[in-house]
Amino acid sequence: MKKNEITILGAGLIGTLMAIYLKRQGLDVNVYDKRPDKRKTPYDEGGRSINMALSYRGWKSLEEVGLKDKVMPLAIPMYGRKIHDEHGGTTFISYGKEEQAIYSLSRGKFNQLLAEEGESLGANYFFEHKCEEVDFRNQEITFQTPSGVKKMEAPVILGADGAYSSLRMAMQKQIRFNYKQEYITHEYKELTIPATPEGEFAMDPNALHIWPRGKFMLIALPNPDKSFTCTLFLPNTGTKVCFDKINDEHDLEIVFKSYFDDAYQMMPNLKKEFFRNPTSALINVECFPWVQGNSLLIGDASHAMVPFYGQGMNCGFEDCSILNALIDKYGHNSWDLVFAKFQKKRKIDTDAICQLAMENFVEMRDSVSDPKFNIRKKIEAKLYELYPNDWIPLYSMVTFTDMRYSEAYAQGKLQEGIMDRVMADPLITENWDKLDYEDIIYKMETAKAV
Amino acid sequence: MKKNEITILGAGLIGTLMAIYLKRQGLDVNVYDKRPDKRKTPYDEGGRSINMALSYRGWKSLEEVGLKDKVMPLAIPMYGRKIHDEHGGTTFISYGKEEQAIYSLSRGKFNQLLAEEGESLGANYFFEHKCEEVDFRNQEITFQTPSGVKKMEAPVILGADGAYSSLRMAMQKQIRFNYKQEYITHEYKELTIPATPEGEFAMDPNALHIWPRGKFMLIALPNPDKSFTCTLFLPNTGTKVCFDKINDEHDLEIVFKSYFDDAYQMMPNLKKEFFRNPTSALINVECFPWVQGNSLLIGDASHAMVPFYGQGMNCGFEDCSILNALIDKYGHNSWDLVFAKFQKKRKIDTDAICQLAMENFVEMRDSVSDPKFNIRKKIEAKLYELYPNDWIPLYSMVTFTDMRYSEAYAQGKLQEGIMDRVMADPLITENWDKLDYEDIIYKMETAKAV
Repeated sequence: MKKNEITILGAGLIGTLMAIYLKRQGLDVNVYDKRPDKRKTPYDEGGRSINMALSYRGWKSLEEVGLKDKVMPLAIPMYGRKIHDEHGGTTFISYGKEEQAIYSLSRGKFNQLLAEEGESLGANYFFEHKCEEVDFRNQEITFQTPSGVKKMEAPVILGADGAYSSLRMAMQKQIRFNYKQEYITHEYKELTIPATPEGEFAMDPNALHIWPRGKFMLIALPNPDKSFTCTLFLPNTGTKVCFDKINDEHDLEIVFKSYFDDAYQMMPNLKKEFFRNPTSALINVECFPWVQGNSLLIGDASHAMVPFYGQGMNCGFEDCSILNALIDKYGHNSWDLVFAKFQKKRKIDTDAICQLAMENFVEMRDSVSDPKFNIRKKIEAKLYELYPNDWIPLYSMVTFTDMRYSEAYAQGKLQEGIMDRVMADPLITENWDKLDYEDIIYKMETAKAV
Repeated sequence: MKKNEITILGAGLIGTLMAIYLKRQGLDVNVYDKRPDKRKTPYDEGGRSINMALSYRGWKSLEEVGLKDKVMPLAIPMYGRKIHDEHGGTTFISYGKEEQAIYSLSRGKFNQLLAEEGESLGANYFFEHKCEEVDFRNQEITFQTPSGVKKMEAPVILGADGAYSSLRMAMQKQIRFNYKQEYITHEYKELTIPATPEGEFAMDPNALHIWPRGKFMLIALPNPDKSFTCTLFLPNTGTKVCFDKINDEHDLEIVFKSYFDDAYQMMPNLKKEFFRNPTSALINVECFPWVQGNSLLIGDASHAMVPFYGQGMNCGFEDCSILNALIDKYGHNSWDLVFAKFQKKRKIDTDAICQLAMENFVEMRDSVSDPKFNIRKKIEAKLYELYPNDWIPLYSMVTFTDMRYSEAYAQGKLQEGIMDRVMADPLITENWDKLDYEDIIYKMETAKAV
């Protein structure tokens, strides 16, 4: 085996994109996945979310590998959140400027497109290869396969094998590995709003629909077949509305009629889907170091986050882009250096987005239903319009730029403090359009200078 | 195998004490350890600390199983800290009231005493049995042994297998296990101050000796053979004085002569020991749940802490005592209930002591060398003397009572806030003895009521 043969663990979105980057660098790439080849068996994600929200960072990576135009036809732009209240009324809140959108994408087809692109560039794929052991010292990897155990050399390993990474588990058995895995109290279940009998979208397709209900929520993202994939987020147990307390069709009907009645009317298959589809957990993973000997963790394997900022895939794609740039810079014979630089630069940013994803859950399920939230967004949008270089709303920094997540986080916290003071005005609902916007910017600049 | 046969993983201090408790309950107990039998091979802890500091919680458990009198001859009381400054001067600071002490104990002999006591009560020990797999659903456990792989039924499993617990690793592979392991930047190495040529202790044996040097420290605990076991705590890397920068005898001599000269004069074997003994890592582990099916984690397996409060073993022994009381209460056929009650009650307390252990490192290596620290301790001692029911210093609550760690923590934080204000008086060094002590108590009671 050659020194420049790269072993990638995981043929998911991150692993397949990384394979493309590396093939374009002229490297030899073997991708291993424990699951069967998707092209030969029906697609089943075993409860993982089917819909992704592709935004700036993701598109930027796709553009780098020349795939933007191929992916665009699969993507549906969502220009804002459509908030559904308990009486069926809706409010639209833009994500950013008029033309700015995040893009709904189905995992299955997108993953296949990436895998095929890598294959056409010469990457080799091996399915039903479950990584059992990694011997960092001897640079060997052991797979369980349908035809028995295979042990092979692996001079360079990239672990893109997700939140339950085998490579990470192997690292954890080594000494001095800092590691945290945390399940939040909420779990999720996927449901569907199918196309109408006339074959049309049942709701506005160019929005991410949210039914925020305080401690829980339902969301819906559009699909090219004119259906919506819905995700229901509930506490697992212990609250008035939780998965534990929905045990039969009657319980289910009461919850949906009480809280999501407009959605309920569009979900003819709710009862079947609810009791057939798995209830899945939500995990946050942080660890360090990401490097052990010749191996590096990327994507969810090193920083699985909760899905509430829509950045999991985008952040993983940015990992690939940054890693690719470092390989460009330091060449194909300096993996130690490239990996060390990568983890040193990137960790602070993935910590920031993990934290933001956790915090954004409260915003999505609760704050968005507060009329003041909309005013706050409008004030920030106006600041952005008037002072585009000085005030970019946090959501926009994360979603529509490639500013480092850690910088977006710091700047966002600063702006949050200023906005809290602005919103404390009891007459803000009436006066928001007549504020002294220059003074707000001045306050922010002053706070920043301290 | 009978339903009341208990499998204990780990024949360390916690596993052997738990075996004694269970045998006294009339249960069948099998204890498995991956290491060889200590009685047949020389004692080697592979870098783990040899000296323990037994305090109230530990003694209480030993008393419950009737072992206090057997252990006492192995223990050396330490009534306070003896602080060594950089010029060889020393200051003694009492741990508590005059007769209150913590007890230095060597791990090896103590562990053997506990194992033999359990064996005499009928516990079975199996050494060189490395737990490879736990099948929670089928209640089976698989061991690697010198004579091959053994798979056996295990209706009830207690994981007392320490910071790198195999049982915990098996639980982590299950879903919804919250887990954190964190290495601190400091590591440690054990060294020795032998008895003098006259066969006497080289220093006061009734104190825990500390050489606090800000970012690092050396400590020493007495042994019955009139030697002291020293532990050097240094950052691993990146600071002026760190393990990475001590590469030869010359480096070592400079560090010891500069910072620990009085100790250095008593360490004839320093050079040999330093380069022979391993440098060991310090880990903090928190996880939840502690229960999976028929299995429960206890001691370091569920809450390994850094050693700076001297509570690791004491807390583990208290685990055993609390678990024993629950078995007493709910009987031998309600393991689910007993385990559920145990983790529900205990987690908040082990979180508190893990946190305190982390915080106490700063106190030991830094604060104790501040003259004001001594005054602070004196004021608190006086408050304790005047108002023994209202003000117990935090260290005393943790070390000399069996108050819940979480309550000690909360009360300690409250007292800390009051004391910070008392110590802010610029003339406190002169006036500490003339303070209005009643007013301090009043302030504390008021703060508590809020």
